[in-house]
Amino acid sequence: MIYQNDLILRAARGERTERTPVWMMRQAGRILKEYREVRAQAGSFKNLVENPALAAEVTIQPVDLLGVDAAIIFSDILVVPDAMGCRYEMEEARGPVFPQTIRNTADLRLLHVADPSELQYVTDAISLTVKQLDGRVPVIGFAGAPFTIFAYMTEGKGSKTFSIAKKLLYTDPAFSHRLLDLITESTIAYLKAQIAAGAAMLQLFDSWAGILSPDQYGEFSGRYIHRICEAITEVPVTVFAKGAWFAIEDFAKYPCRTIGLDWNTDPRWARQVVGPNKTLQGNLDPCQLYATPEQVAEATRSMLQAFAGGPHIANLGHGVYPDTPVESVKAFINTVKQA
Amino acid sequence: MIYQNDLILRAARGERTERTPVWMMRQAGRILKEYREVRAQAGSFKNLVENPALAAEVTIQPVDLLGVDAAIIFSDILVVPDAMGCRYEMEEARGPVFPQTIRNTADLRLLHVADPSELQYVTDAISLTVKQLDGRVPVIGFAGAPFTIFAYMTEGKGSKTFSIAKKLLYTDPAFSHRLLDLITESTIAYLKAQIAAGAAMLQLFDSWAGILSPDQYGEFSGRYIHRICEAITEVPVTVFAKGAWFAIEDFAKYPCRTIGLDWNTDPRWARQVVGPNKTLQGNLDPCQLYATPEQVAEATRSMLQAFAGGPHIANLGHGVYPDTPVESVKAFINTVKQA
Repeated sequence: MIYQNDLILRAARGERTERTPVWMMRQAGRILKEYREVRAQAGSFKNLVENPALAAEVTIQPVDLLGVDAAIIFSDILVVPDAMGCRYEMEEARGPVFPQTIRNTADLRLLHVADPSELQYVTDAISLTVKQLDGRVPVIGFAGAPFTIFAYMTEGKGSKTFSIAKKLLYTDPAFSHRLLDLITESTIAYLKAQIAAGAAMLQLFDSWAGILSPDQYGEFSGRYIHRICEAITEVPVTVFAKGAWFAIEDFAKYPCRTIGLDWNTDPRWARQVVGPNKTLQGNLDPCQLYATPEQVAEATRSMLQAFAGGPHIANLGHGVYPDTPVESVKAFINTVKQA
Repeated sequence: MIYQNDLILRAARGERTERTPVWMMRQAGRILKEYREVRAQAGSFKNLVENPALAAEVTIQPVDLLGVDAAIIFSDILVVPDAMGCRYEMEEARGPVFPQTIRNTADLRLLHVADPSELQYVTDAISLTVKQLDGRVPVIGFAGAPFTIFAYMTEGKGSKTFSIAKKLLYTDPAFSHRLLDLITESTIAYLKAQIAAGAAMLQLFDSWAGILSPDQYGEFSGRYIHRICEAITEVPVTVFAKGAWFAIEDFAKYPCRTIGLDWNTDPRWARQVVGPNKTLQGNLDPCQLYATPEQVAEATRSMLQAFAGGPHIANLGHGVYPDTPVESVKAFINTVKQA
């Protein structure tokens, strides 16, 4: 595939680029009124995720409307457990809910390694997006990191402490590893199908990384991320583990290309820990975008400076919040592009 | 005051002690059936907090029942905004709720610097506890760090992102500093009253520290913690800022004696950053206590090893979870005492 704009792929390979590429986690979403219109048309979040034509449409919106350097496929990390046999529902107020949780070896009977054909609605959406973008920018595929998926499947819903999930790591490590293994196998097959459909980069989201101690992280999360990074040799992989600053040194040894930083992490410190070769991604505080466009531009320039010591893909330190003013979002993106 | 057991005070002063002292955040609480009985008698959480005799009773329970080396006064960090004129309610399912939030300069009219006489129910509870303990162990007083109190007063309730609170830091820093200043002045007066009532140590809880970027943390949280540490010269102060690993280097320069670590923070790394002089406190993962007593004992020994490079007060890395088995809690405490 020849891209008109392949800045992000070159930055991910560690090459020097004429400017820093930029995209935003959750860029395809509620910040755009055009998204909210399609979402209303779909009727529900899950309908939108499972409809390739509509998913492709909202995936491309931020390329057209915001001018980002990559599209990330509109989907959800929880499609993987869904395909494994652990269905989720998305409740408007509460977020994801799993009516049937998986908490012991007997529950594993309910699950199977997901076959990518069960997630064809995602790979179809990727193919369609790639076709419609026609080389304007690359498409990023993604999946949840196995521990984050494990946390939802065992806890059954979002949680501040995920104490049910964490308790299982301590009380039933054998079960925990079996479930993590099933998730990992499903994820690798799913990511390979995303590549086959045209995803030019992949990102792993370890949203709940920060609830684990460093030792537990290595045993129950890092090793599975490592395995995925080893299995994916076709395209560059980004690891974004929110709150897992303590694991960055390990990530630097994995065969991933890019390490995403949350806004708590000083980019200069991360560069020292990671060394000169990998690309870093991030990390403006999404709340910074509540400020005026002028303030956002200033903060963005200061962030770019902090990342100047090595290859960088500009992004926020977490997904953009739904009520963020579009003007400030544009100030962020345009400041990166003009720097 | 002469204590039969002053291990924790000596450890807080950085002296070598015959063994490591141990207590647990939230030790006076729902893990003990004796607490649940008094709580039922009080009728509500706030009634219990505001009743000195009952508060003293539950404060002393873990000394009697668990053998910890300090009592921490049973109270809540939100008594300070309550006394400032911003009343809170404690809802069983949702946690604290502030019907009237403080979000702009005009709202500041509703507030005043709290006079310690408005918090006499706490200082009375401390005096009573000190009297009833009769020198068995010291009593720890506490307050929330100003930013954490600010977060509740502005947001109005708990939140995953506290995006309303954080937005104010970006959009109205002048208001934010005025509110933080009022909270800080109230907190200093309150802590001095706790000392006068007999608190032999103080701890600041910055529960929501981890939502701020390092720069914002320095400006909106660290500087107020610093000011409190400078104002309190009578007794040793502990700073516990959950998720603020990036601020530990700054805390090392504050005139506090002890730095509390959450369970994400490697004690050996923290010791390197902090240097040899300050005492470190922590940091077993509260979820570890869901494991068997044997596993807890092993993890506790390994934690003690990790802290062996300098003065240490053993604790969890966060408050004990309400459904933790008492046998495992005892395994934690007894392992420290026998090491």
